[in-house]
Amino acid sequence: MRAGASRPQAEALARSVAAAEAEGNASVGLAHLLDYLDAIRAGRLKGQAEPKLERPAPALFLSDAGGGSAHLGFERALGDLAAAAKTLGLALFSQKNAFTCGALGYFAARLAEHDLVALAATNGPALLAVPGAKQSIYCTNPLSFAAPLEGGPPLLFDQSSSPLAFVKLREMAACGETLPEGWAIDVDGEPTADARAAVKGALLAFGGPRGANIALMVEVLAAGLSGANWSLDAPSFSSGEDCPGTGLFVLALAPALLDPDFTARMKAQAERLDALGVHVPGRRRAEALARAEREGLFVSRALIDKIAAA
Amino acid sequence: MRAGASRPQAEALARSVAAAEAEGNASVGLAHLLDYLDAIRAGRLKGQAEPKLERPAPALFLSDAGGGSAHLGFERALGDLAAAAKTLGLALFSQKNAFTCGALGYFAARLAEHDLVALAATNGPALLAVPGAKQSIYCTNPLSFAAPLEGGPPLLFDQSSSPLAFVKLREMAACGETLPEGWAIDVDGEPTADARAAVKGALLAFGGPRGANIALMVEVLAAGLSGANWSLDAPSFSSGEDCPGTGLFVLALAPALLDPDFTARMKAQAERLDALGVHVPGRRRAEALARAEREGLFVSRALIDKIAAA
Repeated sequence: MRAGASRPQAEALARSVAAAEAEGNASVGLAHLLDYLDAIRAGRLKGQAEPKLERPAPALFLSDAGGGSAHLGFERALGDLAAAAKTLGLALFSQKNAFTCGALGYFAARLAEHDLVALAATNGPALLAVPGAKQSIYCTNPLSFAAPLEGGPPLLFDQSSSPLAFVKLREMAACGETLPEGWAIDVDGEPTADARAAVKGALLAFGGPRGANIALMVEVLAAGLSGANWSLDAPSFSSGEDCPGTGLFVLALAPALLDPDFTARMKAQAERLDALGVHVPGRRRAEALARAEREGLFVSRALIDKIAAA
Repeated sequence: MRAGASRPQAEALARSVAAAEAEGNASVGLAHLLDYLDAIRAGRLKGQAEPKLERPAPALFLSDAGGGSAHLGFERALGDLAAAAKTLGLALFSQKNAFTCGALGYFAARLAEHDLVALAATNGPALLAVPGAKQSIYCTNPLSFAAPLEGGPPLLFDQSSSPLAFVKLREMAACGETLPEGWAIDVDGEPTADARAAVKGALLAFGGPRGANIALMVEVLAAGLSGANWSLDAPSFSSGEDCPGTGLFVLALAPALLDPDFTARMKAQAERLDALGVHVPGRRRAEALARAEREGLFVSRALIDKIAAA
């Protein structure tokens, strides 16, 4: 709020970074608050923005974030979105004109808490190349999926369309680390294994042409449907005065209307997969959350000082 | 019908294989009819099945295919599904207890013809392994996505969660071809480059853990929500009397309710991506369809004789 945010914007941002920190997702956790504070001061995150919500059809919840956080519009729509999904079977939240949303899994997890299956997608400034292109085309375009399991934390993944998240690439660049083959191109569009060259160039989509199609689907869901900026047109989230104007797609499905035993059946299947050696995503997040509940969050003095100074 | 199918089942199957053949997707085209005929005679595709349709909530269209084709229930629901999506904003078709659906893109394309954005997923007998597992866990679990473009064919992809479709792997095995590293394991769970060993073992998910998550999401959407057989429990589609009992998830979204200019904006973006060297999927399919309209389909005498004999 001292950096210029309204109380609702400040609270929504604070909740999202605290949640990411508690989930063990430090790169979009409390440290990410520094990015938000810098963006609010520069004006590319409109700290006073009031999201405009519309419901043009019974299952559609549209938001124009007005250059503010991605979180506030979603939080305001969440109750009605979940209620509509449970009445109609499914419902969609579609938002344009927001700052980057940090951890995309945050949005899917909120719906799983309502016993809903969730699919979420978002875009942002172009950072990701695909086979055939010599430049960045998409943001890392993450996709998140969540499904409630009876009596426990949800199945949940949140994965970029790149082989690693851009915040992780920046960390590797800062440490001068080497990238595996096929992960990135340099500023001239040539393959590179140097994380610092990749930061100036572009990451490549994971899994070749199939991963590129996933990135394209995320782009259409997040930016195409909402009318948000295409990744190619989105201003930077780390410099300048212009909001990236990203899109956000959050689909909510009510599994109990399809099968009252869905969560029990999912739990049994998750246990079976686990016994066969298959990674069922969501457990590490749940363990981190439980530890945070028990012990609180341990934050370095250096980070607290940086946030206080900002 | 002479193999034991009712007229509606026969017509639905015939339309789907003719469409795949016309789209240049020969492996699930007319040659695939031989698999259907064999399955009808053996009883694992119930030729006389009548799909049971329910609508437990305004946006939910559920189908129990009764062991019959995946196509008939969808065709019967399609008009109402599209109308509901255009009224409510989105709607879902969810089906269990079907034979394998052939080309998944068929279902997404039908919705794109109604100016809808579509996301489709299906599962089937386990053929696909993931990191950590020593056996098949999922079917090739394809995902298909379609979006209408103004004045032209839709953006459309239909891709397995494996590096290649199982029908293509069988073709490679028949020709004794070699697979790239990391594509498959043999019957003992060890890596193999031999397509014949891979047919007896399992394909691996594309793109490592991220591709494995896509396969898991497809499994939950297709089998979890519908109550269909998990891939691990699905009987073979090539032998025996038991129907694979697969699931099908087809989501329909009405973009015009979100943004009246969606198809124009998508068309401009597709052209921009194309100019930047990005593959925009759907064009090859559209060209094949146009050629089929113009010239008809050229089918080998050998295949026609095989179908006649079957």
